Amino acid sequence: MSDISVGIIMGSQSDWPTMKLAADILDELGIAYEKRIVSAHRTPDRLWEYGKTAVDRGLKVIIAGAGGAAHLPGMMASKTRVPVVGVPVQTKALSGVDSLYSIVQMPKGFPVATMAIGAAGAANAGLMAAGILATSDPELGARLDAWRDALAASIPEVPVDD
Amino acid sequence: MSDISVGIIMGSQSDWPTMKLAADILDELGIAYEKRIVSAHRTPDRLWEYGKTAVDRGLKVIIAGAGGAAHLPGMMASKTRVPVVGVPVQTKALSGVDSLYSIVQMPKGFPVATMAIGAAGAANAGLMAAGILATSDPELGARLDAWRDALAASIPEVPVDD
Amino acid sequence: MSDISVGIIMGSQSDWPTMKLAADILDELGIAYEKRIVSAHRTPDRLWEYGKTAVDRGLKVIIAGAGGAAHLPGMMASKTRVPVVGVPVQTKALSGVDSLYSIVQMPKGFPVATMAIGAAGAANAGLMAAGILATSDPELGARLDAWRDALAASIPEVPVDD
Amino acid sequence: MSDISVGIIMGSQSDWPTMKLAADILDELGIAYEKRIVSAHRTPDRLWEYGKTAVDRGLKVIIAGAGGAAHLPGMMASKTRVPVVGVPVQTKALSGVDSLYSIVQMPKGFPVATMAIGAAGAANAGLMAAGILATSDPELGARLDAWRDALAASIPEVPVDD
Amino acid sequence: MSDISVGIIMGSQSDWPTMKLAADILDELGIAYEKRIVSAHRTPDRLWEYGKTAVDRGLKVIIAGAGGAAHLPGMMASKTRVPVVGVPVQTKALSGVDSLYSIVQMPKGFPVATMAIGAAGAANAGLMAAGILATSDPELGARLDAWRDALAASIPEVPVDD
Amino acid sequence: MSDISVGIIMGSQSDWPTMKLAADILDELGIAYEKRIVSAHRTPDRLWEYGKTAVDRGLKVIIAGAGGAAHLPGMMASKTRVPVVGVPVQTKALSGVDSLYSIVQMPKGFPVATMAIGAAGAANAGLMAAGILATSDPELGARLDAWRDALAASIPEVPVDD
Amino acid sequence: MSDISVGIIMGSQSDWPTMKLAADILDELGIAYEKRIVSAHRTPDRLWEYGKTAVDRGLKVIIAGAGGAAHLPGMMASKTRVPVVGVPVQTKALSGVDSLYSIVQMPKGFPVATMAIGAAGAANAGLMAAGILATSDPELGARLDAWRDALAASIPEVPVDD
Amino acid sequence: MSDISVGIIMGSQSDWPTMKLAADILDELGIAYEKRIVSAHRTPDRLWEYGKTAVDRGLKVIIAGAGGAAHLPGMMASKTRVPVVGVPVQTKALSGVDSLYSIVQMPKGFPVATMAIGAAGAANAGLMAAGILATSDPELGARLDAWRDALAASIPEVPVDD
Repeated sequence: MSDISVGIIMGSQSDWPTMKLAADILDELGIAYEKRIVSAHRTPDRLWEYGKTAVDRGLKVIIAGAGGAAHLPGMMASKTRVPVVGVPVQTKALSGVDSLYSIVQMPKGFPVATMAIGAAGAANAGLMAAGILATSDPELGARLDAWRDALAASIPEVPVDD
Repeated sequence: MSDISVGIIMGSQSDWPTMKLAADILDELGIAYEKRIVSAHRTPDRLWEYGKTAVDRGLKVIIAGAGGAAHLPGMMASKTRVPVVGVPVQTKALSGVDSLYSIVQMPKGFPVATMAIGAAGAANAGLMAAGILATSDPELGARLDAWRDALAASIPEVPVDD
Repeated sequence: MSDISVGIIMGSQSDWPTMKLAADILDELGIAYEKRIVSAHRTPDRLWEYGKTAVDRGLKVIIAGAGGAAHLPGMMASKTRVPVVGVPVQTKALSGVDSLYSIVQMPKGFPVATMAIGAAGAANAGLMAAGILATSDPELGARLDAWRDALAASIPEVPVDD
Repeated sequence: MSDISVGIIMGSQSDWPTMKLAADILDELGIAYEKRIVSAHRTPDRLWEYGKTAVDRGLKVIIAGAGGAAHLPGMMASKTRVPVVGVPVQTKALSGVDSLYSIVQMPKGFPVATMAIGAAGAANAGLMAAGILATSDPELGARLDAWRDALAASIPEVPVDD
Repeated sequence: MSDISVGIIMGSQSDWPTMKLAADILDELGIAYEKRIVSAHRTPDRLWEYGKTAVDRGLKVIIAGAGGAAHLPGMMASKTRVPVVGVPVQTKALSGVDSLYSIVQMPKGFPVATMAIGAAGAANAGLMAAGILATSDPELGARLDAWRDALAASIPEVPVDD
Repeated sequence: MSDISVGIIMGSQSDWPTMKLAADILDELGIAYEKRIVSAHRTPDRLWEYGKTAVDRGLKVIIAGAGGAAHLPGMMASKTRVPVVGVPVQTKALSGVDSLYSIVQMPKGFPVATMAIGAAGAANAGLMAAGILATSDPELGARLDAWRDALAASIPEVPVDD
Repeated sequence: MSDISVGIIMGSQSDWPTMKLAADILDELGIAYEKRIVSAHRTPDRLWEYGKTAVDRGLKVIIAGAGGAAHLPGMMASKTRVPVVGVPVQTKALSGVDSLYSIVQMPKGFPVATMAIGAAGAANAGLMAAGILATSDPELGARLDAWRDALAASIPEVPVDD
Repeated sequence: MSDISVGIIMGSQSDWPTMKLAADILDELGIAYEKRIVSAHRTPDRLWEYGKTAVDRGLKVIIAGAGGAAHLPGMMASKTRVPVVGVPVQTKALSGVDSLYSIVQMPKGFPVATMAIGAAGAANAGLMAAGILATSDPELGARLDAWRDALAASIPEVPVDD
């Protein structure tokens, strides 16, 4: 089993500018991860393989981003019990409402931990992964608490004009 | 190769009251079909198998109905070049807008011929299948024309009070 | 009967940049097509004529794109049994949700095979036409399978920074 | 030329319970009208004929109700310069938002005077027809003013418990 | 009574770039009009006065454009029986859906002939006004028919690349 | 000047079952109020008069409920500087989204303090009125605090089965 | 107790360009205010403290702006009986509909006086605060009336081309 | 530290019929949990206390359900690093879209693992909790796999008429 506990997967290269924000958070918190393009529609066998081996490879969280008819997070959730965190990528015509509905409205049996549309959602996917790992890793929990404290401390009291 | 040219698949038993309307149309037009429950999330291997063998089994159209995060039509479209006709089943909270977006907003490469939400869409899926088959079956084309003529002829000139 | 099996029609010249993506796919797959501006509202008689002669002219699929109160695909479906593939063109105020609803919500009797809003939908309309034609043309089916295989093969394993 | 100045048309018998409210208003105001089922998709030739003869038959307003992909009002507007008043009939899945968008979002050239979804819209279609006729019929204008005055006079000052 | 039969009113100067398209159509068709800023909220007394005198001043159609909580068309409809044609101006956050709902969803008694959101709707408001006036002005009817014929004739058969 | 500091107005008798919940809160808090039917469209002069005299009559808050193209709250806000609290009444087709947009999206100059759609919004309108009056009435402030404390105290720790 | 009667709070520095429009109105009307960044999620204790001391510090209105899952206005309303005026800040993916729903749909007990999305809403929050303060400050009421009169007087009669 | 690893919290007793479905899943999987009513608005101090002590009390997942302006899940996420799974409860006017947006659109820093609206979402919250706990509890992982296998095995091949 490798040291990599988080897999970041996405439907296409064009999702990476969004999903990179998840990777940045994992980097900040010292969490090892891998990143892969796994398209539900174009490379379904890759999705199958990834899901089938996830537990044995030691993955503890899978972060999956996709846009439009975004089937990747939900299909991954059907192939593995590893928690899947879904990031709805913003789309041109429907602004990501299509992505959101395709990811969050899963039927009973296959939850996807859905995040906000776009950049904030991707960053939060990294933090959700950290929170999940911290349930069995107190040192990471402490680092996460520190990250959260630093965020709170960074907020000024009074807004300033540009 | 069997005589069955159309497969009607659906995500769960609860979709059958809607999808039966597609079957009714195929019965009216004398088109042989099979019906199966194939859940994208609960029986993904069944979906895989169904898609992988569709061409060889002689299927020419697959009608797929699903609700909510409705991944079945799109995932089937990723596994076979057989035309997939998608029926968004109406849902409780979002009235089928979630089903519609999950089915219609497919990325380049994997079209799903999306129908209206609910009953009208299911019936029309049967008619779309007939229209596709008729492109190489003039006798069916004539039967379809007759069905359409009968529909037009059934419309009275003047509305009547109940 | 001509060799042209697909007609691409659209409501106005302004739809062409979108609909050209359908034509590009047909070119890639070696499918002969014609392209016409047929406005449901501005040239309804042209629509009538086009629909009435479609079967006899040998058309097997009609791809119809329109935006806003997009009546072209549905009206064409009322005039011919030839399968109509509808492309909702993106609009300024409502982003194509108006186009989508006007195209997809057809009543029983007149299905339109609705694609995604905008560019992806137009490309997929070309692929759906190919899939329909392939139901009676195994050589085209093989070309379509190859196109799909090439798409899958083009997906890298790992995302890269810009 | 007949005395009938208003035509009430609708896509199907099922629209009549809604559209009857337009007829009721015309009855109250003493305006002669005819009522017809004219389906854009099922009886397009009837629609064509109706539109082509509307001016010559002396129609001054056409009230058109339809639901879902509601093409009737807009297609009628493309066939005649007679003002078309559109009534979006409420639908099951999308509550008439599909009807509304299909009717109101007409392209430049073919306006439809769109009313509210459902019953209030149908009644208002009758009043809009009256207002249009009153532009050249002062006596009808006086009757319309009286109708409006009576409506205002019917409003109590204070709400009462049931 | 003046020769002016159409009043174009709008909620603010910022609506003029949209509403000018209605004026342009009236100019093309040789219809005399006046244009005024009448804000339902900022100048309600102006609205009152305008509505109360509309019939006596000889106005036969009032075109009213507004955005957001767009109360101008509906409030004008409550003050005069002259037909009010409403134009929902596009807005920044909600793209004019707020304008549309505020204009079209009028209660029984006070119809507003609602047009499409934005530019197409404004142009169509001019055409709707022309259609209404043409019900008692055959010469204008002939000019309107010619305008419509010219529009149809302007549509090329085949789309061209840029 | 009377002792009545709050006016509850509504567009029609049918709004009273909703608006009564505002009255109930005012009764619980011992705040004197009046209730009136004031329709923006059917009784605009009543609206004018009510607004013009509101300050002189001693009204300190006006609670206005309406549905659909809900112009009453905004038009009242244009006639008086007395704070207007708007309640979007739920509607049949659009569930009150039309009411909400028509009330909340007011242009600069004329705020309406918009509440939630339906019953909760009406009750909260009563509480908002109380909060406004309490800014200059410490005894009422104390009663309002007590009401809020009682609400918090009424929440059990653990949910119970029915 | 200080002279400051209005607190403007916002979830982050990025909200200030919007919320500054509320401050500008208060400046124009000569109302003393303070401005603070109070994030519901990042600085919840600051929110608690601000709410708990609001009455004793003499605050009579709190203007709270936030975007997305905008919890600040509603959480502040749960901590103090001081009227909270909520401003939904426009967001990237959902245009502020998420902000609007998160602010306006408060449960019984905790009203938030919700304004329009974005800039107009922020300016109106300032005016609503003025209207509330004016219920017990006739001099401010006169200044507010003058502001409103000036707004009305600034509207030209006729729109002008750019 | 207790044996209870999951806390189910909800905004009010009326959420329990939905949230009970989460509890049922935890019962099926043999996971100890507690259930509490914690209202963000009515009992904010209870929320504070719950969040502040969650880690020390040994909670590893918090399932939080709420409807409307649903602030509970997000506020809990601001008070503890324990992963929060959010369930949007269906609402009367907006069907839970308000709940969904209020829960899922969290800003960077405070993720909420959002589930589907209503019953399916509540059941899935239980499964998500199980999946999270299973990352450090292989025996639970095996039970979860068995539960998933049983679900798949329960799907019949062919739909049956009622």
